[in-house]
Amino acid sequence: MKNDLLLQALRGEATRRKPVWLMRQAGRILPQYRRLSERVGSFKTMVQTPDIACEVTLQPIEELDVDAAIIFSDILVIPEAMGLPYEMEKNKGPVFPATIGTAADVDRMIIAGEEGVDYTVKAIKLVKSALNNTIPLIGFAGAPWTIFAYMVEGSGSKTFTLSRSMLYNRPEMAHALLHKITQSTINYLKAQVSAGADVVQLFDTWAGILSPQLYTRFSMPYLQQICSALQPTPVIVFAKGAFFALSEIAQLSCAGMGLDWTISPKFARDMAGNNITLQGNLDPCVLYAELPFVQKATLQMLQDFGPNRHIVNLGHGVYPDTPLDAVKCFINTVKQYKI
Amino acid sequence: MKNDLLLQALRGEATRRKPVWLMRQAGRILPQYRRLSERVGSFKTMVQTPDIACEVTLQPIEELDVDAAIIFSDILVIPEAMGLPYEMEKNKGPVFPATIGTAADVDRMIIAGEEGVDYTVKAIKLVKSALNNTIPLIGFAGAPWTIFAYMVEGSGSKTFTLSRSMLYNRPEMAHALLHKITQSTINYLKAQVSAGADVVQLFDTWAGILSPQLYTRFSMPYLQQICSALQPTPVIVFAKGAFFALSEIAQLSCAGMGLDWTISPKFARDMAGNNITLQGNLDPCVLYAELPFVQKATLQMLQDFGPNRHIVNLGHGVYPDTPLDAVKCFINTVKQYKI
Repeated sequence: MKNDLLLQALRGEATRRKPVWLMRQAGRILPQYRRLSERVGSFKTMVQTPDIACEVTLQPIEELDVDAAIIFSDILVIPEAMGLPYEMEKNKGPVFPATIGTAADVDRMIIAGEEGVDYTVKAIKLVKSALNNTIPLIGFAGAPWTIFAYMVEGSGSKTFTLSRSMLYNRPEMAHALLHKITQSTINYLKAQVSAGADVVQLFDTWAGILSPQLYTRFSMPYLQQICSALQPTPVIVFAKGAFFALSEIAQLSCAGMGLDWTISPKFARDMAGNNITLQGNLDPCVLYAELPFVQKATLQMLQDFGPNRHIVNLGHGVYPDTPLDAVKCFINTVKQYKI
Repeated sequence: MKNDLLLQALRGEATRRKPVWLMRQAGRILPQYRRLSERVGSFKTMVQTPDIACEVTLQPIEELDVDAAIIFSDILVIPEAMGLPYEMEKNKGPVFPATIGTAADVDRMIIAGEEGVDYTVKAIKLVKSALNNTIPLIGFAGAPWTIFAYMVEGSGSKTFTLSRSMLYNRPEMAHALLHKITQSTINYLKAQVSAGADVVQLFDTWAGILSPQLYTRFSMPYLQQICSALQPTPVIVFAKGAFFALSEIAQLSCAGMGLDWTISPKFARDMAGNNITLQGNLDPCVLYAELPFVQKATLQMLQDFGPNRHIVNLGHGVYPDTPLDAVKCFINTVKQYKI
């Protein structure tokens, strides 16, 4: 591979400079994405049409010259493939018309095979071929707890009381659903790897709403199952808000750990030890500032993480209205930084 | 005072049992509150009518027999007193028709004196007299950063990009507004103490959205100013989501620190040291479970915090639809627990 900085960093090797990519780099920050999105008209159509998903995945590679591509898709393709379709509502985000509330609902869910999400697998093949071995391609999925929360709540939530209560009140039922999600996710991610994904990232977006005990019981075992099943493919686990789980996550069979911007590099390294690569974690709000400030804050972060085992990213997906010149300033600052 | 367990715990004295109260104990969990609220029809009228605010404050004392009263009010009375009125929208929460975006907006804000929130001060006098020295009365205010975020965003937000960006882009302007909020809050809390509040709690509800660096620069100094100004009244600082700031908060002139449910008692004690009282932190979702489970989880928490310097509470305000028998089970479990 022409530029395998990301893979080197995940293996713990010293790199000539730090690799950089952005969560949500393929999306609304790019004018070419917004034009395409307006023409197609539907987010789900974009996700489900391999040609379009491939085009969107490649847009930031050309525009931003990042060190990795990440397949354009959505974490909610898994519940849909399991039998729970979702809709993307403007200004509201994803909504599930039906949700999981009873054991019968859980029974109705199928363990999705590769065919349920074949559009993403096809898109990966197209991207892989177009990349022509220049940079690695990242596949991804939602972590089982986060997918569970969406399936029970039916959308995002301020307090997630339905899904969290279910963990306390119906633990067997919760585990049964988490098991089906996990198996579906393993099938899906293995298919992504077979199609060409070089790395996979698990997004545990709602990790931070759980107490440490609940997280240990209802998220960690499923993350472990997925990480083990995917060996030897490098896995990055990004558990947003789960400062309390960093040392546990470092014990998983994963090569990297994503960090949100509330976690200082020192805290992360103290908790995680030296055998895992850290990814992150500039506050995405920094990119609304003047360029000299963007540069200064990026340099500070680069320094704070130290020379090794660091993949540069934001602490969250880039916000859709972020100025493109700030994104480019961030990326260029990383590239010019001498380790 | 007949029952001063809360004050003893805040002074670090050994108590015969642990004191217990609930954030949002005066509110929608109580049928008597819901009846009154339906009759009055407006949340703000309830807050602004001393007789009603007094009645609501006393309702949980009779119904739940908790170890402290907390004045019924709202953290947003301060921005309103500064010149930025809010409305309470059904199913949406507070909304500010006008927000702070420019230096001129900041200039327009006044430093509120006691008279701007005299209804709460009057309510405190009524409550204090009705309590007749049986239990302590807690006054409260929002922390300056949280009030700032509301004034800039105009409501709650998923990402708080406007308010956080302002910290990066317009730091002097942000500090000017935070200064006015802080002075107003000091005036307000001093008036609460003069009227009879025995303890005050600062709610930094949106602490967890800031990076540790931003929190250190834009929240901590203002918390310190308030804590110092209120000496020798005991202050409890509850910075939700700010796991990264616990050791800094322990250095403030405050007697207690609130903890949300993502923070384990051991982590909190390790970070905070032994010279501060910890308050919290049962996951409020536990109260949706069966009573034996509520009891078991409460006992576990009581044990995990150890015998001293602990005030029992939830890790967040009690959710409005929490079953009352679970709340009572929680409280009774605390009262029957032998330290």
